[in-house]
Amino acid sequence: MSGPSADHLAERRLRVGRLLTEAGLDGLVVTTLVNVRFLSGFTGSNGALVLRADGTGVFLTDGRYRDQAVTEVPDLEHVIDRDLIGQAATRIEGSWGVESHTLSVDAHTELTGQTAAHVVPAGRLVEAAREVKDDTEVAALRSACAISVEALTGLLDGPLVGRSEREVARDLEWRMLQLGAEAIAFETILAAGEHTAVPHHHPTDRVLRSGDLLKVDFGARVDGYHADCTRTVVLGSADDWQREVHAAVREAQSLGVGALREDAGVAQVDALVREALRDSGWLEYFTTGLGHGVGLQIHEDPFFAARHTGRLMRRTALTMEPGIYVPGRGGVRIEDTVLVTADEPDVLTDLTTELLEIA
Amino acid sequence: MSGPSADHLAERRLRVGRLLTEAGLDGLVVTTLVNVRFLSGFTGSNGALVLRADGTGVFLTDGRYRDQAVTEVPDLEHVIDRDLIGQAATRIEGSWGVESHTLSVDAHTELTGQTAAHVVPAGRLVEAAREVKDDTEVAALRSACAISVEALTGLLDGPLVGRSEREVARDLEWRMLQLGAEAIAFETILAAGEHTAVPHHHPTDRVLRSGDLLKVDFGARVDGYHADCTRTVVLGSADDWQREVHAAVREAQSLGVGALREDAGVAQVDALVREALRDSGWLEYFTTGLGHGVGLQIHEDPFFAARHTGRLMRRTALTMEPGIYVPGRGGVRIEDTVLVTADEPDVLTDLTTELLEIA
Repeated sequence: MSGPSADHLAERRLRVGRLLTEAGLDGLVVTTLVNVRFLSGFTGSNGALVLRADGTGVFLTDGRYRDQAVTEVPDLEHVIDRDLIGQAATRIEGSWGVESHTLSVDAHTELTGQTAAHVVPAGRLVEAAREVKDDTEVAALRSACAISVEALTGLLDGPLVGRSEREVARDLEWRMLQLGAEAIAFETILAAGEHTAVPHHHPTDRVLRSGDLLKVDFGARVDGYHADCTRTVVLGSADDWQREVHAAVREAQSLGVGALREDAGVAQVDALVREALRDSGWLEYFTTGLGHGVGLQIHEDPFFAARHTGRLMRRTALTMEPGIYVPGRGGVRIEDTVLVTADEPDVLTDLTTELLEIA
Repeated sequence: MSGPSADHLAERRLRVGRLLTEAGLDGLVVTTLVNVRFLSGFTGSNGALVLRADGTGVFLTDGRYRDQAVTEVPDLEHVIDRDLIGQAATRIEGSWGVESHTLSVDAHTELTGQTAAHVVPAGRLVEAAREVKDDTEVAALRSACAISVEALTGLLDGPLVGRSEREVARDLEWRMLQLGAEAIAFETILAAGEHTAVPHHHPTDRVLRSGDLLKVDFGARVDGYHADCTRTVVLGSADDWQREVHAAVREAQSLGVGALREDAGVAQVDALVREALRDSGWLEYFTTGLGHGVGLQIHEDPFFAARHTGRLMRRTALTMEPGIYVPGRGGVRIEDTVLVTADEPDVLTDLTTELLEIA
C-alpha cells in the first residue's frame, strides 16, 4: 500500500482552499468519504475533515481508526470521537461550506443546530479539484490500467469457447488480483452473443460459442484508483455484420480519444463522436453515456453530456466509450481510460482496438 | 438470479405502508437504493420509489434501466426519466416522508422546491421494516452462509503455511465464487500472527508460519444478501496463551449466540457478553462492536449498543462477534450469522467454533 506523499496532500488541501476563498467561504466541512481520503490520505470507512480556506485542517474519525489515523494522516490534528458532526460543529466559525450533494438532511440539521457558523451548501467543490490528478494519482491509475491490460491479454490467449460468461469473468478478475490489483474496480461486465446488446450485462451461465461477439468491460483497482476498459472481440471468425458494427465503434472511439486534449470542450467532444456514429448510421443504437472521469471513484467528474459547459484540463483522467447496442442481436463497445495532457492524449489502457478473432 | 416473488414484494410494501400510516404520513419518497431494491426488486444503480401508505407506488429510474425495470419490477407503474427527484415531486401530495438519513441536502431542496406536499424527515423507516426477513431473504442468507462455510472448510484443508495473507485471502474468495456466490460480501479480513491484533486488518504479503494465529473474517453474497463469518485457528500446535484467549472468546460468543432470541433486549445481550469477557479478565481488549444486522447490507439495523432500547424480533438476522485484541501480540474473533426464531437461534454459519489446529 503506498499512499500520497505529505507534500501532495498539502498541495491538494491548498488547491481546495483556493476554491473556498474564491467562493467567499472560511472553510469546508468535508464529509464525503472519498473526498476525505483525497485530502487527508485516510482510507478507513468513517472520517471527516474540517478544512480551513488556508489549507490547514482537523481530521475526525472514531476510535476504531485511532492507530490507522496516526499512520495515514500524520500531518493533521486528530479528533477521535463517535460524533463527527458534533465535533465539527464546535470547530467552525464564520461562513462554512458543506458538501450539500452528499450530506444528509439529518446530518445537516444536526450540524446547524450545534454551531454558530453560517452554513452554506457548497456542492461538488472537492470533486472539481479532484478532476486534476497529481503524480501519485497518475502512477496509481497507470498501474491499475497496466494490470487490467495484462490480465485481459492473458485471458484472450484462451481457451474461451465452451466456458460460461460467469466462469470467464471470474478468471479475468482472478488474473487482475494475481497481478497485484488490491481489488477489482467494479463488477465485471462480460457478455457473449445476444447478451452483448445489453450495455451493462451481468455474467450468467451462458456458454461461450464460436461465432459469438464477446464484450468485456472490466478494470483493476490500485491504491484506491480505478481502471476502466472495454474490448469486444469475436470468438472464431467475424461475420460481415460484426465487422461493420465493430468498425463503426472503433472509428468513433478513435476520434473521441484523439479529441481528449487540454481546453477541448466536453460538449464538443461528445458532439464529435455522436456525429461520427450518425454518419455511419448507428447513432440510434448508442444509448449510453460517452464517458466519465475516473480516479478514486469509478465514475467521477467530469461526465460527458451535451450540455456540459466545461473544458478538459491537463491531468484529467477519463474514459472514452462509445458503443452500439442492437436489441436482440448484439453490440460492441470499445473503451479506454485516457489521461489528458498538454499534447497527445495518453491512453493508459494501452491495448489494440483492432477486431480480434479469438481461436 | 432469483429475486423476491411479487407476493413478497407486495407484502413488504404493505408492511412499510403500515409504518407510514402509524407515523401519520401519506407516503414515503424512497431514495435509498437498497431500500428501493427491498421494496421493488430492482437491482440497478439508479432508482427511486414513490410509495403510498396503502402499499401502492410508482417506480422511477432512468433510460439505461428501461428493460431491466420491466423484468424486475413488473407489478408497479414505471416512470423513466433522468430527473427522479423532479418526477417524484409531481406525484406526491399531503404529508410525505423522505429518507432524511440519506437524502442529500441538495436533493431535499430540489424536492421541496417542486412540490406542494408537506415534506417530513422520516428517517430509518424502511430499515426498520428490513429487520424482519421473509422467506426469500432467509433462503438467500442461508445460501450465502452455506457457501461461506464450505469455502472456509476447503481452505482449511490446507496447505496454508508458506503462503501470504493476500494469497490465502484470494484463494478463499475464489472458492466462494466457484461455489456460486455472485460476489464476495466484503473485502476479506485475513490476518496472521501479530496482525490478528488488528480488528480489521487488510491482507498483506506477510507469510503464514507455523505457530501463527490465523483470523479470517469473510463472507459470500447471494441474490444481494450477505454472509458474515469469522474463525480464528492456529497453524500447527496452539500454545497456552492462544488457547486461553480463544477459550475466552468462544465462551462469550456461545453465550451471546444463545441469547439471540425473540424479545431479548439488544442492550441486555450486549451486557451479557461483556460480563463474560469481564469475568475472564479480557474485557479491556474487546474494542469493537458486538454485532450487527445483516441482509441486503453487510451492516444494517439492528446494531448492538449498550444504549439500544430495542428488542429482537423473530426473523431478524444478525452477527455475534466478540473478540479479544491485544496490541502487538495477537487476537481472536469468532463470529456467526444467526437468525432469530421463536425458539433456538438458527446459526446460519454452521461450522464448529472449537480451536482448530491446522497442519
